[in-house]
Amino acid sequence: MAGRQAVKAYLDLVSQACRAVLIFLKDNKIPHTMENIAIRKAQQKTPEFAKLNPMQKLPVLEDNGFVLTESDAILKYLATAYNVPDHWYPKLPEKRARVDEYTAWNHANMRTHISSIFLHEVLLPRMRQPANSEKLKTVLADLDGTLDKLENVFLKNQAFLCGDDISLADLLAVCELMQPLCSGRDILKDRPKLLSWRSRVQSALSDSFDEAHSVVYQIREKFTAKLSPCSNQATL
Amino acid sequence: MAGRQAVKAYLDLVSQACRAVLIFLKDNKIPHTMENIAIRKAQQKTPEFAKLNPMQKLPVLEDNGFVLTESDAILKYLATAYNVPDHWYPKLPEKRARVDEYTAWNHANMRTHISSIFLHEVLLPRMRQPANSEKLKTVLADLDGTLDKLENVFLKNQAFLCGDDISLADLLAVCELMQPLCSGRDILKDRPKLLSWRSRVQSALSDSFDEAHSVVYQIREKFTAKLSPCSNQATL
Repeated sequence: MAGRQAVKAYLDLVSQACRAVLIFLKDNKIPHTMENIAIRKAQQKTPEFAKLNPMQKLPVLEDNGFVLTESDAILKYLATAYNVPDHWYPKLPEKRARVDEYTAWNHANMRTHISSIFLHEVLLPRMRQPANSEKLKTVLADLDGTLDKLENVFLKNQAFLCGDDISLADLLAVCELMQPLCSGRDILKDRPKLLSWRSRVQSALSDSFDEAHSVVYQIREKFTAKLSPCSNQATL
Repeated sequence: MAGRQAVKAYLDLVSQACRAVLIFLKDNKIPHTMENIAIRKAQQKTPEFAKLNPMQKLPVLEDNGFVLTESDAILKYLATAYNVPDHWYPKLPEKRARVDEYTAWNHANMRTHISSIFLHEVLLPRMRQPANSEKLKTVLADLDGTLDKLENVFLKNQAFLCGDDISLADLLAVCELMQPLCSGRDILKDRPKLLSWRSRVQSALSDSFDEAHSVVYQIREKFTAKLSPCSNQATL
C-alpha cells in the first residue's frame, strides 16, 4: 500500500455506527484521519457535506477518492481492503454468512429500537418537545424482545455473537447497546449473560472502546447530574 | 460439489425478500427445492418452524444442515458458496462495497416504506381493520423521497444500481418495488428513468422474474376486481 493516503472518516461519536467505524480503524491500526461532523449542529446537512454524501448521513469513509456510506458496508470494505485478522469478517462462506445475518438483522431490530429510545430520552427533551411516555414504554418492550433474541438466537452459549472470536457483529451490537447509557439507562443490567459478553467484547477492544465512547460517558454525566442535583458523580 | 444435496428454501412469495431468493436460485440454476410457508396462515409461527428459525420469519435457507436467515445474508452466501457470475456480488472490494452499501440502505428505507404500504393497503383491509389514511399519506411521501434517492444517488446515469451489470442490489430493489402492485399501485409510473431500469432488470432476469411474481399479479387482480366490479381485467 505504498503511497496510499490515510483513509478519512467523517464521524460524530454520538452515533453508534460512527463509534463502530472509529473503533475498527483504531483497533486494526488502519492509518486514518477523522473529521468531526456535529449532528447537533446539523453539519451533515450542509450543501458542502451533501456533495460528499447526498444522503446527508454519517458515517462516511473516503479512501483515495472512493467515498462510501453505511456503517455495515464501510466495516466490510475496510476488513477486506485492509486485510485485517480473519475473525472480524471470516472468509469461509458459512462463517461470513453468520456475520452478514447479524448485520442485516441489526437494522430493523437493535438499531430501530435503540435509536427510538435515544430520540425519546435525549433528543426530544433537548429540543424541549414533550416526551411520549406511552410510546417509550412500547419501544422498551420491543427492545426487551430484541435483547432476548440477541441472547438466545445469536449469542446462545458462544463467547461472541458469531462464534468463539470477536466479529463485526459484536462491534456493531456493542455500540448499539451502549447508546442508552446517554440517558443513564443500562439496558443489560438484569442480563448476566449479555453483561459477560459485553465485558469480553470490551476487553477484546481494549482502549479503543473507551476512547470512542467518551462522548457517551459525557452525555450520561450531564443527564444524571440533571436528574440528581445533589450529586455530580454519575454511576454506571 | 459431488454428493451435495439441493438447497432447501422456505419461502412465501408474497414476501419481496422471498421472491428475491427464489429468482436468484432459478436464475443461477442452483439446485433447490422450495417449501411454501404460508404467512397468511401464520405457518412461520408454528412451534415446528420456530425450531428451524426462532425468529419465526421468512426466508430461510437450509444447505446441507446449515440454516441461514435474512435475505441479504442468504443471497450473499449463495453467491459465494455457489460461485455465481461475479457481477451479482463482485469480488473487487470497491465494487462489492457498493452492493453492501445498497443492501444496508435498503432496510430502513425501501423495505420500511414498502412494507408499510402493504400493511395499510392489503393486510389491514384483509383483517377488516380501519385504514389510517393520514399515516398512508405520510408513508407515500416518505417513499417518494426514497425513490428520489434510489434514482439520483444509486442509479444516477448507470444501467444498474451499482454499475453496468445487474447485482444483488437490483434484485432486492426490484422485488421491493413490485410489492405495491398488490394494491394496484405502480409507484414508478411517473418515473421514466426508474421504469427503464426496471425493464432492464426484468429482461436480465427473464422468466424467473414473472414466475416469482405470479402471486403479486394474482393479488393485484383480486384487488382491482374488487375496486371495479364491472371489470375482471386488471391492468398494470
